[in-house]
Amino acid sequence: MSSRMIDGFGTTALHAELFSDEAVIGAMLRFEAALADSQARLGMIPRSAADAIAQVDGLDASGLAEDARESASLAIPFVKALTARAGGYVHWGATSQDLLDTALVLLLRDARAVLSRDHARLADSLRALSEQHARTVMLARTVLQPAPPITFGYKAAGWFGGVQRSWRRLSQAFDEVLQLQFGGAAGTLASYGKRGPELAVELARALELPVPSTPSHSHRDRLAFLITQCGVYSGAVAKIARDVALLMQTEIGEVSERGGGSSAMPNKRNPAGCVVTLAAAAQVPGLVASFLFAMVQEQERAAGGWQAEWPIVARTVQATGSALAAIATTIEGLTVNADRMRANLDATHGAVFAEKAAMLLAPKIGRADAQKLVAEALQDKMLREAMAGHLTAEQLQNIDRPEDYLGAAETFRLRLLNEE
Amino acid sequence: MSSRMIDGFGTTALHAELFSDEAVIGAMLRFEAALADSQARLGMIPRSAADAIAQVDGLDASGLAEDARESASLAIPFVKALTARAGGYVHWGATSQDLLDTALVLLLRDARAVLSRDHARLADSLRALSEQHARTVMLARTVLQPAPPITFGYKAAGWFGGVQRSWRRLSQAFDEVLQLQFGGAAGTLASYGKRGPELAVELARALELPVPSTPSHSHRDRLAFLITQCGVYSGAVAKIARDVALLMQTEIGEVSERGGGSSAMPNKRNPAGCVVTLAAAAQVPGLVASFLFAMVQEQERAAGGWQAEWPIVARTVQATGSALAAIATTIEGLTVNADRMRANLDATHGAVFAEKAAMLLAPKIGRADAQKLVAEALQDKMLREAMAGHLTAEQLQNIDRPEDYLGAAETFRLRLLNEE
Amino acid sequence: MSSRMIDGFGTTALHAELFSDEAVIGAMLRFEAALADSQARLGMIPRSAADAIAQVDGLDASGLAEDARESASLAIPFVKALTARAGGYVHWGATSQDLLDTALVLLLRDARAVLSRDHARLADSLRALSEQHARTVMLARTVLQPAPPITFGYKAAGWFGGVQRSWRRLSQAFDEVLQLQFGGAAGTLASYGKRGPELAVELARALELPVPSTPSHSHRDRLAFLITQCGVYSGAVAKIARDVALLMQTEIGEVSERGGGSSAMPNKRNPAGCVVTLAAAAQVPGLVASFLFAMVQEQERAAGGWQAEWPIVARTVQATGSALAAIATTIEGLTVNADRMRANLDATHGAVFAEKAAMLLAPKIGRADAQKLVAEALQDKMLREAMAGHLTAEQLQNIDRPEDYLGAAETFRLRLLNEE
Amino acid sequence: MSSRMIDGFGTTALHAELFSDEAVIGAMLRFEAALADSQARLGMIPRSAADAIAQVDGLDASGLAEDARESASLAIPFVKALTARAGGYVHWGATSQDLLDTALVLLLRDARAVLSRDHARLADSLRALSEQHARTVMLARTVLQPAPPITFGYKAAGWFGGVQRSWRRLSQAFDEVLQLQFGGAAGTLASYGKRGPELAVELARALELPVPSTPSHSHRDRLAFLITQCGVYSGAVAKIARDVALLMQTEIGEVSERGGGSSAMPNKRNPAGCVVTLAAAAQVPGLVASFLFAMVQEQERAAGGWQAEWPIVARTVQATGSALAAIATTIEGLTVNADRMRANLDATHGAVFAEKAAMLLAPKIGRADAQKLVAEALQDKMLREAMAGHLTAEQLQNIDRPEDYLGAAETFRLRLLNEE
Repeated sequence: MSSRMIDGFGTTALHAELFSDEAVIGAMLRFEAALADSQARLGMIPRSAADAIAQVDGLDASGLAEDARESASLAIPFVKALTARAGGYVHWGATSQDLLDTALVLLLRDARAVLSRDHARLADSLRALSEQHARTVMLARTVLQPAPPITFGYKAAGWFGGVQRSWRRLSQAFDEVLQLQFGGAAGTLASYGKRGPELAVELARALELPVPSTPSHSHRDRLAFLITQCGVYSGAVAKIARDVALLMQTEIGEVSERGGGSSAMPNKRNPAGCVVTLAAAAQVPGLVASFLFAMVQEQERAAGGWQAEWPIVARTVQATGSALAAIATTIEGLTVNADRMRANLDATHGAVFAEKAAMLLAPKIGRADAQKLVAEALQDKMLREAMAGHLTAEQLQNIDRPEDYLGAAETFRLRLLNEE
Repeated sequence: MSSRMIDGFGTTALHAELFSDEAVIGAMLRFEAALADSQARLGMIPRSAADAIAQVDGLDASGLAEDARESASLAIPFVKALTARAGGYVHWGATSQDLLDTALVLLLRDARAVLSRDHARLADSLRALSEQHARTVMLARTVLQPAPPITFGYKAAGWFGGVQRSWRRLSQAFDEVLQLQFGGAAGTLASYGKRGPELAVELARALELPVPSTPSHSHRDRLAFLITQCGVYSGAVAKIARDVALLMQTEIGEVSERGGGSSAMPNKRNPAGCVVTLAAAAQVPGLVASFLFAMVQEQERAAGGWQAEWPIVARTVQATGSALAAIATTIEGLTVNADRMRANLDATHGAVFAEKAAMLLAPKIGRADAQKLVAEALQDKMLREAMAGHLTAEQLQNIDRPEDYLGAAETFRLRLLNEE
Repeated sequence: MSSRMIDGFGTTALHAELFSDEAVIGAMLRFEAALADSQARLGMIPRSAADAIAQVDGLDASGLAEDARESASLAIPFVKALTARAGGYVHWGATSQDLLDTALVLLLRDARAVLSRDHARLADSLRALSEQHARTVMLARTVLQPAPPITFGYKAAGWFGGVQRSWRRLSQAFDEVLQLQFGGAAGTLASYGKRGPELAVELARALELPVPSTPSHSHRDRLAFLITQCGVYSGAVAKIARDVALLMQTEIGEVSERGGGSSAMPNKRNPAGCVVTLAAAAQVPGLVASFLFAMVQEQERAAGGWQAEWPIVARTVQATGSALAAIATTIEGLTVNADRMRANLDATHGAVFAEKAAMLLAPKIGRADAQKLVAEALQDKMLREAMAGHLTAEQLQNIDRPEDYLGAAETFRLRLLNEE
Repeated sequence: MSSRMIDGFGTTALHAELFSDEAVIGAMLRFEAALADSQARLGMIPRSAADAIAQVDGLDASGLAEDARESASLAIPFVKALTARAGGYVHWGATSQDLLDTALVLLLRDARAVLSRDHARLADSLRALSEQHARTVMLARTVLQPAPPITFGYKAAGWFGGVQRSWRRLSQAFDEVLQLQFGGAAGTLASYGKRGPELAVELARALELPVPSTPSHSHRDRLAFLITQCGVYSGAVAKIARDVALLMQTEIGEVSERGGGSSAMPNKRNPAGCVVTLAAAAQVPGLVASFLFAMVQEQERAAGGWQAEWPIVARTVQATGSALAAIATTIEGLTVNADRMRANLDATHGAVFAEKAAMLLAPKIGRADAQKLVAEALQDKMLREAMAGHLTAEQLQNIDRPEDYLGAAETFRLRLLNEE
């Protein structure tokens, strides 16, 4: 009973798989097998018991989710089912949260690898786009209106900077989250007597996870860091999609996607990749708010907040991954129409250089008067005409040459691409 | 590839089914079949074409969701697949939004029936609980501290009032949403010439839906009304769960759930139903925010906002349904410990009647002084002792009798239960 | 110490005043005066005590807010200060929540009047705009791309429908909220013995508020209804602003605001009213989520959730009011450029009538082939040229006449304007 | 026209001042003065012009906020007003965003200092509390039910760890945000020709801010990082408040605040500091969602998203600061009742050691059977009695001694306090 159709944009097929019932069971089994193996190595349980657990390579998921509602814990029916298969040393001395939190960490480790690959793809495409269009001039647009020129290379570098910085923070968050969670019923590992910390080290090694200094328990700031940085990353990605969709408006036409069609209009080219990106990213901020609210967890284990986390975490990562995958593909296939960019610039008849004209006039007549003079002159004339008599011939000559009014665009572009 | 395990509390099995791939395909097929049938009846397409469409009773869902990412529309691969099966009159003159919005309405109609049944179950249990405990006195608790007495019957009636009022608004919202969406590419039904409105009436009839005066199109306030009222309803439901979980603390022990166990502590009784309720309800407010943000849809069809709706709507309804199902079952199985309620009241040694004592003293010495006197006296004495000498013998006699300090509790209880 | 500058778009001056310290103190004094007066009328307190309270027409606000942090209740320092001025019968038998909830209701009543006035202004302008442009044809735009034509009158009617429906729901919510809150410490009015309900009726009359059947107490669904409908209304308003800002892009140029300037570019015309609307509306969905989370209030009075409400409620109403005021003024001053609308339509060279062409061809060659044929033909030809040989002369003649492809636009427009 | 009363818990007086009109004007003046001074030093404008600007030490705020609505930019009326006072070289070559973004940074720098001081206060108190109660045993509580013992010292160390980690991330975010924003109209500093970067360095020095490699412009990830980490920090703080409020319930009574009173019940002690903390923290997650949504900013400057930021940022920081100030004071004044902690432990009659008993039995009869045996035995007997005959005399002796079942509590406590 899949629900991929209702959620086609909130996740990709791959990210759906990463949090599927099969994946969840796999991660839970992996925890229990590693726990038993570590305990056998430390002589806490018989080796044969550990071997029996290790041999279980799947469980029937059907029914587990419903049973979980009885106890408000997926761990209970799972441990029961696994015990029925592999005997009484299953989950020895552990608690639900050890199992569930660590299983989630294992799932997130796989998800990180996918995100990482797609981010590299996106970053590479943006860098290439920026290099290729280092000199392609175009209008900046502020408040949806034309503004002084930039280069498309600088614009792409800005996108690159946004996702690159956001990725670094998200990576840091993954580093904090991807560690063993192991605390026992009260966060003290008391069921193992004095040997808790030793077992934790062994277990972490078996799972190839760092061992944390202490269990996270009801302190959820590490996961919250991850979720919020998914939020920031999604925002940076969605910003690109919005820009591209706007540039792709027929009346502007400066870029185009390989794009999608319409069920009613046979010829229509839609910014489909941007739409998927935006639809996916739109899921995230609300999820972030939900996670932050759920952080207020009672005492040593919450009544509600903790149990609310799994779907929030999965959906956040999936939606981030979906947005990322869609924009990466979009950018890879983006066509840039440099002629149209220049044509749209020219069509302003120099109006976007009004600032430049005012700056040239201002030393003579003051900034306020210069702005007023320029604004009034532009009511009914093109800039060049409007400024005749006010500027020198040489000033007039280049007054509306975009290449002459790019300021530090190239400097900034290079800095963005080269920031470590 | 189900993901029930990751989302075991965010939906029930039943609500998961209602938005599954099978259900979505079924609803989409139903729209196309009804459209074709209506068009055949109006002579717009051949009857044989409509029959061919009507005969398709399933489509392979696999691949549709991924294909949808190419065009940012599930309708496109769906119509293509259906056309391959049932010929060229499929989706005749319609647009993606007609199909998708109406399919969603059909899914929501089914979900409403389930919610309605569970709400009735909850309302009935709350009413019965209130009637049964009309005279069971207990502490009110304000700011998590003891306050003057109420009855458990009044408390249950308050819960009833909250969900009952919220249900009425949610019902009104369903009434607004459950109607045909049919506007064609630009919301004008132009592809049908002058016959659009006539076809809309016919199609609505075929789907047993009301025909709206106009298509909703990019104006999403009706759905927003539904989503927000799921939010309010979930909040009312979660409030009950929080109250019950708090009353069930071992140190308070005034009610108990049939409850769930623990994977580590064999004897533990957890407020499992409340936890599931709270974990489910915690999903909703963030989803509501997402929907409201997504309402800002560009022109005649949005680039992102509209496409973001499906998972938000499905999850909101599912989480509301999950919270509701869990609390209904919890309330049905609730055990009330009236002795413990009275014992907790008695254990305050009259302190919760301090207000009463102050009110009795105040006419003589003023409210401020009366409050001061009572507060100071209660520092080291029980109320009865503290007030000796200040109150008349008769006043003193009943000063800490909860039954004498219930005010309008019963009046209000009855009003809550009997509000239409 | 005002903070209007940091929040210039989140509220108007008028809405800031409605929730200012002066307004809050005024509302709180009004409650206490009405309470005392009612009690005097019922012989519960001396008339002279009520008169003393009624004579206080202001309190020094400085310090009250800071003092409120000591007790987590603004009522406590307020009652203390008022008692110091007007004697010991202040707040007789009442509780903090009676005072604070009702004061909020009084503030909201004033805010409603302002919202109502601005909504009428907006609705009237939209209606007029729709009537005036009933025949002004323009491109629909779906997914930010050109689509078959509509009229600007229909578009404006769609905006009208969105805000009008949302206003009706918001009005209903105000009706539910604008009533007396009066329950005493435990929601039983026990401090008044049997006379609580009688006093409630008297008090409600004095405040010109409906008397509710029961106190709302810790059941916050009524306020939640109000807040969520502010959310829906803001969304409907923001949708208009986004549409207008997009239509106002220089490259599209179909409408323009009276608009604002730029600090750097002297000649620039920005969609300033739309920007203020969007900036204000962007505050609301997050606030709605906060309110819904805060609804989960413990027992008879919450520890946190209730106390979180005031700023959420005030900001939600203020931001809604700010968005509304800005869009109303924007629409009142909107200039519509019908020539540009037609020019943009013409510039598609008939491509937006591809659906029409396909519908005409489809009966002959099937929908799929027709769509394919049209799409391919439009790759390098204009529609009229592309369809030569495929359509009849008569069909060809009007194939790209927008007036011939408006479907039910006018029917729907009239329905939207005339819905009660 | 202050609104401190409506927002008494959402901000402290100090944090209100930090974002007041006076503070905003001060920061904006400081930017303009520093800009002019830098330009004079570089010979771009006359020294006398810079001096004139530097001499303006205040502007009348009234009217600026309302005027800002005309242009959707506070910078425009501000620059106009300042130009009227200090002449035509004001804001020379700069754009609104340079002024407004940098002014915000200056405000945030001051806010950081206040947060930093309060965090130190909180961290110190938590550390002291943890040291003092390293051996105070108490119940852990999971899902609001008793669980195996911990120490209060470990619990306090857990709180410490949560806020300490969150503070480190928040500090990192402040480091990223607290830098000059300076890009000119299009982010290229073109109005300064080739000298833009040089001027940026000079300006940053004058403002004692780091100079960023490039302007942030419409890429808002740095601010988003700050806002989200306020969210995480607030969540960590609110978790403490919820724990304390629950421990302070009369029936539990393990800690108490210096606390606040009630307007109706003279003797009541409320967890007032916790309530203020929770009410403040409850504002934040919704604000975080709003910021993340607003991140999707169009092109080189957004139409709505950017202009929405100021109130979101100010309120987020203020609410975080308010929650922090309240919890710091609460923890400083916290009374711990170690006797009550032990009494509550004892009152479980050993039930919380059921896990321990089961672990002792399990090697003999298997985990599942051991758990079953213990659970059944505990139905009607106390643990010690229930286990007689099953455990050895020595095991029985200490079966319910909390000190013997603390596992790694002390190890973990020390690690939490000593993590760098």
